[in-house]
Amino acid sequence: MIRQQPQSSRRRFLRTTLAVPVLAGSGISAFVAGTTGAKETISTTNSTTKETHAEISKSGEIKFQLGLASYTTRKFDRTQTLAMSRRAGLKHICLKDFHLKLTSTNEECAAAAQECRQIGINLYAGGVIYMKKPEDVENAFRYAQACGMTTIVGVPEPAVLPIVEQHVQKTGIYVAIHNHGPGDKVYPTPESIIEKIQTLDQRIGLCVDIGHTARIGVDVAETFRKYKDRLFDCHFKDETEMNPKGQTCICGRGVLDLPHYLMTLKEIGYDRIVSFEYEADEKDPLPGLMESVGYIRGILRML
Amino acid sequence: MIRQQPQSSRRRFLRTTLAVPVLAGSGISAFVAGTTGAKETISTTNSTTKETHAEISKSGEIKFQLGLASYTTRKFDRTQTLAMSRRAGLKHICLKDFHLKLTSTNEECAAAAQECRQIGINLYAGGVIYMKKPEDVENAFRYAQACGMTTIVGVPEPAVLPIVEQHVQKTGIYVAIHNHGPGDKVYPTPESIIEKIQTLDQRIGLCVDIGHTARIGVDVAETFRKYKDRLFDCHFKDETEMNPKGQTCICGRGVLDLPHYLMTLKEIGYDRIVSFEYEADEKDPLPGLMESVGYIRGILRML
Repeated sequence: MIRQQPQSSRRRFLRTTLAVPVLAGSGISAFVAGTTGAKETISTTNSTTKETHAEISKSGEIKFQLGLASYTTRKFDRTQTLAMSRRAGLKHICLKDFHLKLTSTNEECAAAAQECRQIGINLYAGGVIYMKKPEDVENAFRYAQACGMTTIVGVPEPAVLPIVEQHVQKTGIYVAIHNHGPGDKVYPTPESIIEKIQTLDQRIGLCVDIGHTARIGVDVAETFRKYKDRLFDCHFKDETEMNPKGQTCICGRGVLDLPHYLMTLKEIGYDRIVSFEYEADEKDPLPGLMESVGYIRGILRML
Repeated sequence: MIRQQPQSSRRRFLRTTLAVPVLAGSGISAFVAGTTGAKETISTTNSTTKETHAEISKSGEIKFQLGLASYTTRKFDRTQTLAMSRRAGLKHICLKDFHLKLTSTNEECAAAAQECRQIGINLYAGGVIYMKKPEDVENAFRYAQACGMTTIVGVPEPAVLPIVEQHVQKTGIYVAIHNHGPGDKVYPTPESIIEKIQTLDQRIGLCVDIGHTARIGVDVAETFRKYKDRLFDCHFKDETEMNPKGQTCICGRGVLDLPHYLMTLKEIGYDRIVSFEYEADEKDPLPGLMESVGYIRGILRML
């Protein structure tokens, strides 16, 4: 079995994800722009428009970029979702099936990816995608390939992992398995995922949800370090409590040590996407999402 | 003439501004809370609910708090403004006359202050209030006193400054004169204000608008240091350019060195309010305001 080297895989990943066209002001809907919002979203001095750079920091060494996990905007359609992502300055998106049905034809998938590109957003992943049967795996990779996704954020039943591996090797698409914390029988923690995939292709790894990881009492920063070669995506959020009762809240208003987690991602040279999954305010997520984005950018600026 | 000592005046200011009742979840409008937004605004782990503490930082030494200059929400009424301020976690407000007419009776002023208190917001100031004639000064102090404001953010014509001083000494209310940058004939820079007030009561000082100050080419951090004993309010924002063509934008998306300004405020022991004046998106300011608040809180967390 050919083993992919993390470094070369990272380089390929960045070549793909950074190939986002520079956005012209036109075409941003009133929804995203408000009256003068477009000025922020397309300002040339706006860090969010530096298409070919990672996040700004004092040291300038941060290699990862910020994105949106579209579960955040589950009550809105895809066009509204892309507008909100753009307004929040998030130019990488992981689409949940609310915004692109898993039953979409290859043509519909290609059209969705094109819609993202047109607004300056990179459709880097899909998910969380559940895969129970071999045909679910087959379809997930078809869908991801038709969209030009580099990554599937998924929850494959352990039984289908060998089939997942075959598809990874056939397509070169990464699979980032998502841990759902307390209550998740199969993959509660990142470690419970690693146990099941450690002998498999190195392109099968983790999407570490920092909220679920912290709520189950696992050290998020240590997880990042320990499994850095298998870390292919992160879901960022904050939590009101560091236990199963914790509820998601705006970044900076909860108890998670976000500066420590971000410093760790910087130190391990994480160079993929940190996606916001803001689960509160489902009918009006944009303000809380944008405060979360601002908080994380403020911390990154200081790293 | 009795000269007020900055230290004792600061202590009195904080006793006043920190006397904000702890908010119960009830009574927050759907407008502020959205579906689950109230959870963020009243979360016990939410820095914005630590009524008796300043902003969270590594060192825990930050003495100032964040507030809202209600020019930000000029297209919304007072109730909506307070709801947005609360949702953004800003519990100190400077009301512009859009939200409380300068012609309001003493009873209307007292009722407005009570409306603020009921939602857990401290009506610390009014302004920007223009004072051209002696009767404008008379009315501004009546209004501020009826509201229980500690500060008037104002633009008094130089000719009425002696009358302003008389009212400051009679009421103990501070006057923070606001600089409007390029195009402002009277008070373009903080220095142009100091020149006119340096012989007057020390409770007459500055509201440094960092955007206007930077756009006219004046060093904001140096201004904070140089005039720290006369610094009674700040308007925070970002700008797309450090020149007269600069346009206001979301904090972190522009060119101002906000970390340096905040570090300087920390170092000089500034212990009053840093108010956000987010001028863009006048029809939909909340997302940009909240990203700005998040960005500043992220930086403060790292100081």
